[in-house]
Amino acid sequence: MSRWFHDSKAADVVSIDDRAFQYGDGLFETVAIRGGEPRLWDYHLDRLTMGCQRLQITLPDLRLLRKQLDYAVAKSAEMRAHCTAKIVVSCGVSARGYARETPTLAKTYIGVFATLPVAAELYRDGVATRVCDTRLALFSATAGLKTLNRLEQVLARSESVDHPVFEGLTLDASEQLICGTMSNVFIVSNQTIITPSLHRCGVEGVMRRHAIETLRANDIAVDIRDVAEDELYRSDEVFLTNSQFGVLPVRRCGEKVWPQHPVTRKVMTMMAEGGVAECAV
Amino acid sequence: MSRWFHDSKAADVVSIDDRAFQYGDGLFETVAIRGGEPRLWDYHLDRLTMGCQRLQITLPDLRLLRKQLDYAVAKSAEMRAHCTAKIVVSCGVSARGYARETPTLAKTYIGVFATLPVAAELYRDGVATRVCDTRLALFSATAGLKTLNRLEQVLARSESVDHPVFEGLTLDASEQLICGTMSNVFIVSNQTIITPSLHRCGVEGVMRRHAIETLRANDIAVDIRDVAEDELYRSDEVFLTNSQFGVLPVRRCGEKVWPQHPVTRKVMTMMAEGGVAECAV
Repeated sequence: MSRWFHDSKAADVVSIDDRAFQYGDGLFETVAIRGGEPRLWDYHLDRLTMGCQRLQITLPDLRLLRKQLDYAVAKSAEMRAHCTAKIVVSCGVSARGYARETPTLAKTYIGVFATLPVAAELYRDGVATRVCDTRLALFSATAGLKTLNRLEQVLARSESVDHPVFEGLTLDASEQLICGTMSNVFIVSNQTIITPSLHRCGVEGVMRRHAIETLRANDIAVDIRDVAEDELYRSDEVFLTNSQFGVLPVRRCGEKVWPQHPVTRKVMTMMAEGGVAECAV
Repeated sequence: MSRWFHDSKAADVVSIDDRAFQYGDGLFETVAIRGGEPRLWDYHLDRLTMGCQRLQITLPDLRLLRKQLDYAVAKSAEMRAHCTAKIVVSCGVSARGYARETPTLAKTYIGVFATLPVAAELYRDGVATRVCDTRLALFSATAGLKTLNRLEQVLARSESVDHPVFEGLTLDASEQLICGTMSNVFIVSNQTIITPSLHRCGVEGVMRRHAIETLRANDIAVDIRDVAEDELYRSDEVFLTNSQFGVLPVRRCGEKVWPQHPVTRKVMTMMAEGGVAECAV
C-alpha cells in the first residue's frame, strides 16, 4: 500500500517535463515513520539542505515540508504506526535541455509506504550479503548525496535476482568498500569500528551519522577512512545501517561467515537506547 | 512548442511510480527530424539497443517504435520540417525500492520539440566554449550510454548561467577531456584528428560515430584515445558534433582562440555530402 502527495493533495502522476523524470535532477529522503513521527528528522533535513546547496536547487520551506509530511502521514492512518515516507525534491519543470530555470522552481512530492519490520531473527542472527559486480564510479560530483541519479544502485540491486541476499555491498572502481545498495556498512577490526569514507562516491545515510554520533557520545571511536575489499573479509564483524531498519549484523558475505557479533550487539543496544527501538533484540 | 506521446496518445504526465522519475532508471535518444524523417535512425537504434542490454531493460519493439515516432512527427505537422524528437525509454513502473520487476515493463515516451537551426555564422566562425568546473566521475558503469542519470551534465550546464558560452566542455576527474555537456568533441593536432575515448565516462553521440565513420570512409584516420586538457589548448583546431547541429567549429575555449578551421571545414564538407545538410556553409 502506498499513497503520494504534492502540496497536500493526492498525486499519482507528475509532469512529463519534470526534470526528475527527464534527468534525475533532484534529491530524495527515505524517512522512517514510527508512531506517526518521522525519525531522525533533523538529520534528513540536514542532508536535504546540503544536497540542495550542492545541486543548486531551491531549498523547500522546511517548516512547510514538515506540515506536508504530517498531513501525508495523517492521511495514511492505517499505516502510520510503522511506515516509510519518501520525500522527493525535484528541480522542477523546465523546457527541454540541461539548462535549468534559475532560480529553480523545486517541487516536493511525499509518498507514504506501508512497510513490514525486518524479522527479529535477522537482528539476532544477521543478514546475508554479497559483494556486487557493479562498481561505483570514482570522484562523483554528487558523492555523499541521495540524488535521483541511482542507476548504480539499481544495477547493483538487480544482481540479487541471480544471487538472492538481503543486501548487496558495493565497491568503487578502485576496489574500495563503499556501502550497500540501500545501507551503509561498518566493519569491526581488532575492537576498532570503521566505516568507509564517502568523499568519492556513496550516500551518507542518516542512520550512519546517527550511529557514528551515538558511538562517539559513548566514547567509542569510529574511524572514517578507505576500506579495501580484503579488509572487509578479514574483519571480525560487519554491520549495516539504514534509516528504516536501524542496525543489522551481517552474518555472511559470499563465502565468508561471521557467526558472532558481540561488538555489533553493543552498538545495537546503544542505538536502541538512543531511540532506534528495532535494535533492541 | 512541444508535444509528448505514449503509445501514440498525447501524454503530458507520467506515473509518479515510474522508475525514470524515482531513479533515472532508463535511457533516451534525441533524434533530429529533417523533412519529417529521423536522421541517423539506425545509429540511434544501435545505441538504444546497447543501452537496454547493458542496463538490462527490455528493448522496445523497434519497428513499433518507428511507427510511434512517425505518428508523433505526423501529429506535429507544423514542426516536422525541422524539429527534435526525444525518445525516453523508462524501465517502467515498480514498487518502491531499487529492485525491478523482471522482466522489466519498459515504457516509451516520444516528445517532439520545435527547434531553431543554429545560426549560419556559428557554422562559419565557430562557437565559444569553456572548460566546466564540474568533473565527470571515473569508471562509470554506464560510460558511453545516454541514460536518464544526467546530473553531471545538468551541473556542468548550470555553470553557463555565470559564464555564458555556446557549450561547456567537461573533463573527467583525472583531468582528461571527455565531451561537451550536449556534444562530443574532436581536436586536430598536426593534421591528425583525435576524439576522446569514452570508456570511463561520457556519452557516445550518434553524430560522433557518423563523423568517425565518414572520415574513415574518406581514408582520414581518427584516433580515439585519452586527451589531456593541455592537449586541447595546444591543438590546431577543435570541433563539436551533436545529433542536432551536426558539426560546429570551436572558435574559443576560455582565453584560447582558434581563428581558422581549415581541417574542420573539410570535415564539414564531407558531412554535408553525407547528408548532414547544416554543415554546408
